[in-house]
Amino acid sequence: MMSTQPTAATTALETMRAAGTKSRTRIRDGFSGPTSGMAPGLVQANLISVPAEWAFDVLLFTQRNPKPCPVIDVLEPGQVESVLAPGSDIRSDIPGYRIWEDGQLTGEVADATQAWADHPDLVSFLIGCSFTFENGLTEAGIPIRHQDADRNVPMYRTSTACAPAGRVKGNLVVSMRPIPASQVAEAVRITDRFPAVHGAPVHIGEPAQLGITDLSAPDFGDAPVIEDGDIPVFWACGVTPQAAIQASGVPFAITHSPGKMFITDEPEDTFRQ
Amino acid sequence: MMSTQPTAATTALETMRAAGTKSRTRIRDGFSGPTSGMAPGLVQANLISVPAEWAFDVLLFTQRNPKPCPVIDVLEPGQVESVLAPGSDIRSDIPGYRIWEDGQLTGEVADATQAWADHPDLVSFLIGCSFTFENGLTEAGIPIRHQDADRNVPMYRTSTACAPAGRVKGNLVVSMRPIPASQVAEAVRITDRFPAVHGAPVHIGEPAQLGITDLSAPDFGDAPVIEDGDIPVFWACGVTPQAAIQASGVPFAITHSPGKMFITDEPEDTFRQ
Repeated sequence: MMSTQPTAATTALETMRAAGTKSRTRIRDGFSGPTSGMAPGLVQANLISVPAEWAFDVLLFTQRNPKPCPVIDVLEPGQVESVLAPGSDIRSDIPGYRIWEDGQLTGEVADATQAWADHPDLVSFLIGCSFTFENGLTEAGIPIRHQDADRNVPMYRTSTACAPAGRVKGNLVVSMRPIPASQVAEAVRITDRFPAVHGAPVHIGEPAQLGITDLSAPDFGDAPVIEDGDIPVFWACGVTPQAAIQASGVPFAITHSPGKMFITDEPEDTFRQ
Repeated sequence: MMSTQPTAATTALETMRAAGTKSRTRIRDGFSGPTSGMAPGLVQANLISVPAEWAFDVLLFTQRNPKPCPVIDVLEPGQVESVLAPGSDIRSDIPGYRIWEDGQLTGEVADATQAWADHPDLVSFLIGCSFTFENGLTEAGIPIRHQDADRNVPMYRTSTACAPAGRVKGNLVVSMRPIPASQVAEAVRITDRFPAVHGAPVHIGEPAQLGITDLSAPDFGDAPVIEDGDIPVFWACGVTPQAAIQASGVPFAITHSPGKMFITDEPEDTFRQ
């Protein structure tokens, strides 16, 4: 008789994936904290949901701006389960949601099932998140200053316009990580291998060229920790489409709340080139 | 006084780009032959135009099937000039167009201006073409059998379903190039550097696994020339979205006619990683 014993690799992968399901169940049952550190090794995603009538413009915006908007899954109208997370329910499996009307933040909820019932034709975009490449940097011995200080990554609105798409427009938002000068090239090389999670930096040094006048005062996240000899390195950020929703006055949208991401069952290595 | 003399590289690039404009003008003025060999070094593209009401489904289909459908530009409703070719007019700058109604081929025209006037909300997708990576293979000394025999590349419908998107579905179409066994790995390595023009092969050897029963009878293009010691290597093909238009019964569509492509002003190197 042939053995059907799973290999050690299969078992490790199944265990990792089971942690995704377990985390989503915990969130569905009421956990409302940030997802940082949950289900390590699995990809976490940003959420943007818009009415079907706006879906082409948003999808085209992501196609024209792949670095800030790397789409890893699209849920069609009426669909609430992501192919990246079997058994998931996008309406309840994120610890916190933001509700936007005409580009204005009008509410924050722990469960979006009711909002979905009121807008049943929502199309949802899951967008890669830089948590994924941060693990690649750590493995290479590159310090992640905000993690070491137990802070959120600093993010900045820039003066650089994204390529508009139909009615959707907005400026690029970047995240910044201070990297020791001797390790900047390595950080580029590593993150370039993760095109589905923002890829290589968009800018290195010279924040003023991006229209950033004060590095110590980010628009989102926490103030940076910068050590002597660090260079500020800027990556395209998944907050960009959220800023575009605002700038474009999209009549209705649901997004995740900052730091509260959608946990998939996909290992980070899936997105490494 | 500062010199404003262009560099040799700038001049060469401008000369190359001017050949794109010149080719499109020649086509607009009536040239109706195939574009193979025209404006060498510039990217040529497949065209798919569909009514705005179908644009989200088609764009999502390309997003879910990037290897057969690498989108290099999208023209919004009412737009007829591609950013990849300043001064272009998508309605007249291709030597031949096919008209599709309810998934059936209903006409072939040399100029699509009238068809556009009847369907002013068309959204046009320009999709990368494997002409681009063939030059990369030639540079590496890998023979392109169909070129040497002055034939069109053989293309086959496969039994492999693409990921569907809304109302759009269809099977993968592949092109096949017989490659000497000793050069197959190199052909993979080179084409992998061109993700915007289909990238690395989807299958190497064993045509039956793709549902191809007779290599000598392709569904599109010409019969292959296979030398002793060649391995059949299959790449995802830009005919795939055209096959999906048919399989999905899209009410109206315009595509380029086979072999008659849209010539951009973009050098092939733009799409090399």
